[in-house]
Amino acid sequence: MRNKIIKRTRLKFNDMPGFLGRFATMVGEYGALFGEISTVHVGKRTKTRDIDLYVSEEKTFDHICDEIRKMEGVDLIEVKDVVNEVHLGGKIEIRPRVKVETIDDLSIVYTPGVASVCKKIEADPDLKYQFTGIQNSVAIVTNGTAILGLGDIGAVAGMPVMEGKSLLFKILSGVNGYPILIENKDPEVIIQAVRAIAPTFGAIKLEDIKAPECFEIEDRLDAELDIPVVHDDQHGTAVVVLSALMKIAQYTYLNLKRATIGIVGLGAAGIGISKLLKAYGIEQVYGTDINPEAKERFAALGGIPTDLDGVMKESRIVIATTGVPGLIKPEMVQPKQVILALSNPNPEIDPEDALTAGAAYAADGSSVNNAVAFPGLFKGALMARATRVNNAMKIAAATTIASFTMDGDLVPNILDTKLHEAVAEAVEEAALKTGVVKYIKPIMD
Amino acid sequence: MRNKIIKRTRLKFNDMPGFLGRFATMVGEYGALFGEISTVHVGKRTKTRDIDLYVSEEKTFDHICDEIRKMEGVDLIEVKDVVNEVHLGGKIEIRPRVKVETIDDLSIVYTPGVASVCKKIEADPDLKYQFTGIQNSVAIVTNGTAILGLGDIGAVAGMPVMEGKSLLFKILSGVNGYPILIENKDPEVIIQAVRAIAPTFGAIKLEDIKAPECFEIEDRLDAELDIPVVHDDQHGTAVVVLSALMKIAQYTYLNLKRATIGIVGLGAAGIGISKLLKAYGIEQVYGTDINPEAKERFAALGGIPTDLDGVMKESRIVIATTGVPGLIKPEMVQPKQVILALSNPNPEIDPEDALTAGAAYAADGSSVNNAVAFPGLFKGALMARATRVNNAMKIAAATTIASFTMDGDLVPNILDTKLHEAVAEAVEEAALKTGVVKYIKPIMD
Repeated sequence: MRNKIIKRTRLKFNDMPGFLGRFATMVGEYGALFGEISTVHVGKRTKTRDIDLYVSEEKTFDHICDEIRKMEGVDLIEVKDVVNEVHLGGKIEIRPRVKVETIDDLSIVYTPGVASVCKKIEADPDLKYQFTGIQNSVAIVTNGTAILGLGDIGAVAGMPVMEGKSLLFKILSGVNGYPILIENKDPEVIIQAVRAIAPTFGAIKLEDIKAPECFEIEDRLDAELDIPVVHDDQHGTAVVVLSALMKIAQYTYLNLKRATIGIVGLGAAGIGISKLLKAYGIEQVYGTDINPEAKERFAALGGIPTDLDGVMKESRIVIATTGVPGLIKPEMVQPKQVILALSNPNPEIDPEDALTAGAAYAADGSSVNNAVAFPGLFKGALMARATRVNNAMKIAAATTIASFTMDGDLVPNILDTKLHEAVAEAVEEAALKTGVVKYIKPIMD
Repeated sequence: MRNKIIKRTRLKFNDMPGFLGRFATMVGEYGALFGEISTVHVGKRTKTRDIDLYVSEEKTFDHICDEIRKMEGVDLIEVKDVVNEVHLGGKIEIRPRVKVETIDDLSIVYTPGVASVCKKIEADPDLKYQFTGIQNSVAIVTNGTAILGLGDIGAVAGMPVMEGKSLLFKILSGVNGYPILIENKDPEVIIQAVRAIAPTFGAIKLEDIKAPECFEIEDRLDAELDIPVVHDDQHGTAVVVLSALMKIAQYTYLNLKRATIGIVGLGAAGIGISKLLKAYGIEQVYGTDINPEAKERFAALGGIPTDLDGVMKESRIVIATTGVPGLIKPEMVQPKQVILALSNPNPEIDPEDALTAGAAYAADGSSVNNAVAFPGLFKGALMARATRVNNAMKIAAATTIASFTMDGDLVPNILDTKLHEAVAEAVEEAALKTGVVKYIKPIMD
């Protein structure tokens, strides 16, 4: 169980050797992990620190607080639910990019000045790229049917995730991400609504929409709209997985394109990964799912459907995205197999167990975050004025991400803005090369 | 013709008495107006100034530049199209409201921390008010069929106006305004799209959608959604006009509720004004339009349809919103009549001409900007968690705006944030009193 609850404690310690150690040991005994630790006050013989604790359950944290109160040399001054606090009022806002301090400023940004700009765009629609924020804006569309590992909690309950994606867009690649919540499970309603509002945006990011509806929604919007439509759970994940596989191939001396790969779980992520691996040139991709329709869809994409045993026996690399903890038993693991058990928060097999069972390499989903992919992938598509995001662009993104990944790691530092810039440039270049752009960008632009 | 084109000139003047005067006189002879004037450099015997000039046509400005080049003691250093510059890349952006500098920050705003907030909202949907930005966000929806005085230029060409409204929302009342562009004239498409995306927002602002479609769209969405849906061209304008009438009544010793009022032009603004005046308690509202259907709509609202002559003869106060410059001839003006000729950029009758013809009071649309109304009107509705914006809320807004208007003026200073705060509070109070709120707000909130 990953520790999902984060509590910020303010603690006053006697500043003597041993106190912090005793405290940390006690916390560890309860299975809690440490996050940020910062010193907020230095007294004569005391130090006050804010310490973030990650726990799996509220009651574990209550026990820890009881223990702290019993300890000598440590005072529990305050507990903050830092997650709640950060979310108060929402995590994003709209800000002006220009100053408006005088009535004259107003005449420039608003009426009467704005009329001349509107008329220019009316006369030459391409000027929207110059005089509006459209080409740097992405709709983050969800119906809330597959939010994180939480499932079908509804679009409004998923808003904190959408605001989180929007926030990542801005800080990592400067893109404006507009959350759009649609409380409806009918693909037709989502398709019509997105089609109607599409002129507002340079691209559409479908987010946390469950399979199989996600496939129809993406396919139809992608065909109908002249801007990219990307279901991130499929393609963002696929880009990160391909990038991770490039690194793993290096660590395990595998020829990736000749390796047999097996996908366990053919939902949005599994299908997205399959598509990209086939496009990358991997011929033998095995796959399984409890749903026969999912297997049919997979076969139609050129995959080889089989059962779980078949996947485990045939595949040099196994990628699991089922959402079923513990699905892969240690005895199923083949010698020297590579196993990515990606379901969050609990993997199909614990990487340690997989390694003990003979795997050459094993990892879980905590290290494979698709936020390393989507900011640059979209930014590059926007920069190129791409009409869609094709496989060449995704592969360019994956290759760039792999090149930024330190040896031994699976993914690079997500907060490295150079990474996202480089991904964007690679994706833009791939878009221009493969001609999925609506306009040739003028050199002076 | 109002001067709509704004140019920023950088000029180096010999710093001697007379130079600035000669320059300003020459500019005035071309019909140009001055905007912002700022000194950017003081030399030994020269001063360099940035001077904004408002002209009606590009070629007028070209003539002025030719003249400057011929003048002694003044150098034209640079010309900037300041309107274009300000619009480059769009006027708004999405910004984080929280800092994200470390991987630990990321764990708090995004996965895994965000999951606990999502689960809380799933369990208690009202927590969306606390943990998301939904209740401080308004969709600014247009199909571009009636942009400013420009008409049907399309939604994308109207984007600079929508971004302008969004910018005003933020700087005047702190609301997040999300432009939503729908390139479609079918009311059904707009209704379905807005209904689908409505859970994202605390209110819907319909903007620059032409009559008669605007009426159906507003009525149906208002009935179907549990958040306010307000067509600003109708109701924002109506609030500002009512507020201006309150001031004019004071200047002209009129009893507003007993006055006969005539509306020339029964489009969105005319109908919105009629509705609010009737709700305010004005019994005799005459109206005319070239479109018989518009007159029928007006009659159904309790107005008295007639023709232009009828309106001019019967009404103590005439409000014209036709978009037809010069429609009202001086000979039609009755003694002591109040005339608001609101069409932009060119009024139905020049206020000077109306006064000369015997009017007691006359004004044009340049002084009646509905941006004094909408930021506070929406903010108040959001604060109250109102399900709609009713007449009591609009009248509360109008009364507050009038109370902030300096004697002699028609509207207050739009950039006075205290005005918008006061409007919001009055609107919130009116909403709570009239019970159009979904939830009783907890006292601690």
